[in-house]
Amino acid sequence: MPSETPPPVAGFRFAGVAAGLKKKEGALDLGAIVADHPVAAAALFTTNVVKAAPVVLAQKRVAAGRARAVLANAGCANACTGAAGLKAASNTTAGLARALNCPTGHVLPASTGVIGALLPAERVLGAVPALVEELRPDGVMDFAHAICTTDRWPKVAHETRGGVTVLGVAKGAGMIHPDMATTLAFVVTDAGATATVLHRALRLAADDTFNAISVDGDTSTNDALVLLASGLAGAPRFTDAGALADRLRPILDALARSIVADGEGTEHTVTLVVEGARSAQAAQAVARTIATSPLVKTALHGKDPNWGRILAAAGRAGVAFDPSQCAIRVGDVPIVAHGMAVGPEAEAKARAVMKTPAYEVTVRLGKGAHAARYVMCDLGHTYIDVNASYRS
Amino acid sequence: MPSETPPPVAGFRFAGVAAGLKKKEGALDLGAIVADHPVAAAALFTTNVVKAAPVVLAQKRVAAGRARAVLANAGCANACTGAAGLKAASNTTAGLARALNCPTGHVLPASTGVIGALLPAERVLGAVPALVEELRPDGVMDFAHAICTTDRWPKVAHETRGGVTVLGVAKGAGMIHPDMATTLAFVVTDAGATATVLHRALRLAADDTFNAISVDGDTSTNDALVLLASGLAGAPRFTDAGALADRLRPILDALARSIVADGEGTEHTVTLVVEGARSAQAAQAVARTIATSPLVKTALHGKDPNWGRILAAAGRAGVAFDPSQCAIRVGDVPIVAHGMAVGPEAEAKARAVMKTPAYEVTVRLGKGAHAARYVMCDLGHTYIDVNASYRS
Repeated sequence: MPSETPPPVAGFRFAGVAAGLKKKEGALDLGAIVADHPVAAAALFTTNVVKAAPVVLAQKRVAAGRARAVLANAGCANACTGAAGLKAASNTTAGLARALNCPTGHVLPASTGVIGALLPAERVLGAVPALVEELRPDGVMDFAHAICTTDRWPKVAHETRGGVTVLGVAKGAGMIHPDMATTLAFVVTDAGATATVLHRALRLAADDTFNAISVDGDTSTNDALVLLASGLAGAPRFTDAGALADRLRPILDALARSIVADGEGTEHTVTLVVEGARSAQAAQAVARTIATSPLVKTALHGKDPNWGRILAAAGRAGVAFDPSQCAIRVGDVPIVAHGMAVGPEAEAKARAVMKTPAYEVTVRLGKGAHAARYVMCDLGHTYIDVNASYRS
Repeated sequence: MPSETPPPVAGFRFAGVAAGLKKKEGALDLGAIVADHPVAAAALFTTNVVKAAPVVLAQKRVAAGRARAVLANAGCANACTGAAGLKAASNTTAGLARALNCPTGHVLPASTGVIGALLPAERVLGAVPALVEELRPDGVMDFAHAICTTDRWPKVAHETRGGVTVLGVAKGAGMIHPDMATTLAFVVTDAGATATVLHRALRLAADDTFNAISVDGDTSTNDALVLLASGLAGAPRFTDAGALADRLRPILDALARSIVADGEGTEHTVTLVVEGARSAQAAQAVARTIATSPLVKTALHGKDPNWGRILAAAGRAGVAFDPSQCAIRVGDVPIVAHGMAVGPEAEAKARAVMKTPAYEVTVRLGKGAHAARYVMCDLGHTYIDVNASYRS
């Protein structure tokens, strides 16, 4: 899934322009995805109690299952901005709706940037004519750039199979992307499906991908994952959410991995597999605890197969297991068997694996049949640098 | 509560010697607290499913409510060491018991250091005669040094009031103290009480102190907090656990604060108060989530009153609240009111407070009557340095 030349997706146009929202002069910071006609829509949003104004608005609007456009910006999260924030989100989406001659309720807003900064509605409205002018079927890279904050690269993934194209765009998250206005992702497809099927498929696919990555464990106030489906592929409509989820999963997985890999200070993308658990919930709880442990993450940064930290993190996950049944592998190298060290030779081999940019760590808890997978990263100095000085 | 010259506590002697467990030649690494006669004893241990051998053994032994001695070492956690680890803990405590002419079951073991390293029983047994020889009523500073790992200072606190002395010793934790063999604390008193009262009082006092500090959110495999009471004060015995807890609390609080303050890379000890919650559990959950958020901790390190991160962390704690009712103060400076920024002038004042080594942050969730307090610290570069290279 190379991200260089995304194919067009029947029924959609994209654009990105500079609206003066980012500090850097002339940087793309306002983007739009516009469907030629109203299309089926579904979305997942942050579970944070503190929700940004665009999340509040988009959540309400997407409930109808139809949408015409996404209006997204970087440089300002429009979170914790009260009534003024809601008004700004409402006014700017109304501006795009007027230009597209569609109901305001068909435009979904999304914002990312510093929390507490109000969206400057005038600047956005001033840029809407240029944005609409720029809309093109091949404009997705401009859109992808417009939603980046401290991302080192735009995140785009696509796949065409059986006459159906799925195209996803995301911005980076967490570790390297301070202030938690972290994850925005938009997926468009020419597949056909009802909003109900879309929503179910999106949830299924997100559970294994976006909901199974960890950068620093902090959940954004602005997270949104939006799926729009034009139904123009000419292929049969999806009536089975599982089948559609199978088509979404590789795209979401590629975007999610790209988000974890794009870490200032992050040198290793580690796929953590927890297996042998008594339930899927138990496997997930253990994986989540290991993936967010600062001690495990600093050991990964130091290329140190410090398995004691992994076991100790597993042990505080609230899941009962017998430590003497545990085994740990780094890549293919077993370093723990029966809850104890395999030995220094094994650890030397593991250390070599840990010098590579991407590898797998497998933790076997016991003889249970359930497993979970998490994509995590190491914790390095640049995280401190970026996050201690982000607003200054 | 200065820690320079701890007073003796009737009925107890202390010692610390070099047994060759630490890498550094001649460093004190084996300590003992010995009561003249069997005394009432209670202890709290790590809740981690993965428990070190000394924890397994001490937990079983202290259940009887009587103890004669503590045998503690640094340099090796004796965790994840299987049957050999249990045997080493058993043999070494038997050695001290023989020297003291008491039942082995009256000696409580405790270890701290790298997980996965087996306690070298021969070295410990070889050092027991010198250890017993060194026992003195004023030997507590040697004991305190013997249980330090990367601590910058030994942690001792004491108070004499109403004819009763309480003396506590601890080693540092978490952030600066890698490998999670972090928290060991021992408290002796000449107060009189049954083991049941001791245990209840210890739990009450620990809840507000040791259980309300966070360094990196990782729970050790070796954590132990032991209380021994000789009853030799001549003062009336404590029959009310609450009254005894009131006497323990200032000592545990001083030790807990010292643990948080002793951070390599930690520059700020922040007392976080969450108030206005609908229940004590809700207040605690919000405080714990804020106190362990890497984004909040890096902002503290950068002296940045980045309240958006604080509100966003509160919002993912699993507690329902109305963000528009929230207020945040840094020291006495209100920076958030009604869920929104007070303004740049307030933040400039807050920034000045954040340059000091210790200050308070207050988060008011709403109009509820419940509050919680947490002592937390910032996340700096030295945490990465220490933890990425601890074992090498």
